[in-house]
Amino acid sequence: MTIAHKPIPAGKTVFAARRRALARQLKRVGLHAMVVTRQADVGYLTGFDGDDSCMLVGDGWATLMAGPFYGEQANQDCRDIEVRIGQMSELIAPVLKGKGVRRLGAQDAHLTASAWRQLDEAAGSRRLVSADGLVAMLRVTKDAGELRAITRAVRAAEKAFNALFRRGRRAFVGRTEQQVAAEMDYQMCLAGADGPAFPTIVAAGARASQPHCRSGPVKIRRGQPVLIDWGARVDCYCSDLTRVVFTGRIPPEIGRIYEIVAAAQAAGIRAIKSGVKIKSADLAARTVIEQSSYGDRFIHGLGHGLGREVHEGPTVTSRNEQRLGKNMVITVEPGIYLPGIGGVRIEDDVVVTADGRRRLSSLPVGIEKMVLE
Amino acid sequence: MTIAHKPIPAGKTVFAARRRALARQLKRVGLHAMVVTRQADVGYLTGFDGDDSCMLVGDGWATLMAGPFYGEQANQDCRDIEVRIGQMSELIAPVLKGKGVRRLGAQDAHLTASAWRQLDEAAGSRRLVSADGLVAMLRVTKDAGELRAITRAVRAAEKAFNALFRRGRRAFVGRTEQQVAAEMDYQMCLAGADGPAFPTIVAAGARASQPHCRSGPVKIRRGQPVLIDWGARVDCYCSDLTRVVFTGRIPPEIGRIYEIVAAAQAAGIRAIKSGVKIKSADLAARTVIEQSSYGDRFIHGLGHGLGREVHEGPTVTSRNEQRLGKNMVITVEPGIYLPGIGGVRIEDDVVVTADGRRRLSSLPVGIEKMVLE
Repeated sequence: MTIAHKPIPAGKTVFAARRRALARQLKRVGLHAMVVTRQADVGYLTGFDGDDSCMLVGDGWATLMAGPFYGEQANQDCRDIEVRIGQMSELIAPVLKGKGVRRLGAQDAHLTASAWRQLDEAAGSRRLVSADGLVAMLRVTKDAGELRAITRAVRAAEKAFNALFRRGRRAFVGRTEQQVAAEMDYQMCLAGADGPAFPTIVAAGARASQPHCRSGPVKIRRGQPVLIDWGARVDCYCSDLTRVVFTGRIPPEIGRIYEIVAAAQAAGIRAIKSGVKIKSADLAARTVIEQSSYGDRFIHGLGHGLGREVHEGPTVTSRNEQRLGKNMVITVEPGIYLPGIGGVRIEDDVVVTADGRRRLSSLPVGIEKMVLE
Repeated sequence: MTIAHKPIPAGKTVFAARRRALARQLKRVGLHAMVVTRQADVGYLTGFDGDDSCMLVGDGWATLMAGPFYGEQANQDCRDIEVRIGQMSELIAPVLKGKGVRRLGAQDAHLTASAWRQLDEAAGSRRLVSADGLVAMLRVTKDAGELRAITRAVRAAEKAFNALFRRGRRAFVGRTEQQVAAEMDYQMCLAGADGPAFPTIVAAGARASQPHCRSGPVKIRRGQPVLIDWGARVDCYCSDLTRVVFTGRIPPEIGRIYEIVAAAQAAGIRAIKSGVKIKSADLAARTVIEQSSYGDRFIHGLGHGLGREVHEGPTVTSRNEQRLGKNMVITVEPGIYLPGIGGVRIEDDVVVTADGRRRLSSLPVGIEKMVLE
């Protein structure tokens, strides 16, 4: 556990640049340092993506604290900052003391109540302040390396879809939703993914009316539409796509809502542009659905940010007054859900550009392209 | 979202019996009710296993609160208790008021600091008390249905292992750790699992020296030992197994530590018996390793409880003074880890019986059975 790894020059990595950006944010809100406990934030700031870790970041310094099982990996991954191995509750007080921290931020939405109490004790007389979203705010805008990783995650997901789709309805009919989901995960891995970005959803027939339906031990029958919501993880970055495929004749009402959802998605994507309010993209898509007779059946926001986590900032809803900015990556996924009948959601991943947007995913949307042979 | 489901008679289900047991615990510690936020506990007490839910349990009453996406499923799964759909922070105050709760327990290790604060506000003048382990304590002892589910999860995991093992070294050599892990997951699903119980670990060669190594995009080379730590989830219950297989000649030092770990595991299993202290099982295995020259290389506890979660009570360590009881299910997984060289861990799942123990898993342990054709 005590293998020495060669240090690399401090301040030269993309991670060091991100920590400097965080230090500027800390200054802005009057904090001397911050405890980062959200695992995806720790990875974003260090490159270390093991579990059971947290870090302290201040102005010009950072310390990663990892549990004993991750000692080897932490020392290997983080060669430009200090690494301490052990329990946060024991490691943190000496670091705080050495750095003269008085006002300390922490992530109260990514720390259990009992861990917060321990941290508060370790912080002693220092003031503990909620600073949950500071790193999330930085993560909203992707750099070139992040965009490349997301694009590769999109490609791996698309390859897996195509591998199943090419086999036609026999890849679906007579198999359980769970088996199809498991094969999708396997195919993503063969296509270069590190794994699925989240538990793949395969929902057949009426089961697609539950937006967060889990794949079940339910056999897919000939003629059922099948909703697939899947994504790959590549180099710690995620993709997130949804399509509905048809194992037989398209049921008339599902065909109708499919066309409405497709039109809503196109309108949502067209509305994306750097500088416009986020809610305007949601509303552009929502208006299309509201003009149909299914206005009350689009029961969630248009999308969400995508990056190291499959759900991250910004949330794309009708209430988000913030503005889209260049190099934000969001999903666009309107849906119509009819309990007892079925549901349609179509989801693509989009990056905001200076003068508009670019769809990262390239699967067709047209319903005629979704009918299995 | 407002489908009516036929209610079932209150008090008749296994879940009702568990809630009565919890109510007795609440009484014992002087609480009028408890907010359950650990998802596996909610599932244990209701049968509802969607995310984004929590529940209130008191003496003779219970209310499940689920997020809007899970309304349909919650109403379907929980027909013997009240179900409310919405946000916990808004739903909880009226229920507390109606039930006359004064002292309220909550799970501070399974609730974020910010959610605890919201709960504290909703609780008003009521005293909020940490009651984290009350349900966990009940879950330690399994009933017949739980044992059946765990056994099925063990069988699905074993079938998947055998499917890969039968194909011989070509199922391993030349493929990446991630691809082998993904195929293991797929095979578990074909064998009847709902999915993997946790991210499958496949670690080749020296990489097995990290006990929590993640499967990487690393090709397995001929001659490398491959550590596989995998488990299936069936009907919400988990299995958890580890084996090391050999793609060529057994490296002499790995062969030596394999025999020591196998002997330690046998000693640990033999020490398991209802009524004995948990630490004595750990120590029985640990002594075998300490008598070798690898005494300091068994760097974790002997095992952990297994059930709805892959890690649950009891922890099987050299410090646990509690006693084993009939129908507890634990893993027995000693290991020796040699940084830069490799590692061996052998893990089986064991249920404690009145007069001893029964191994739920049936894969061979002998090293000669682990050499791939």
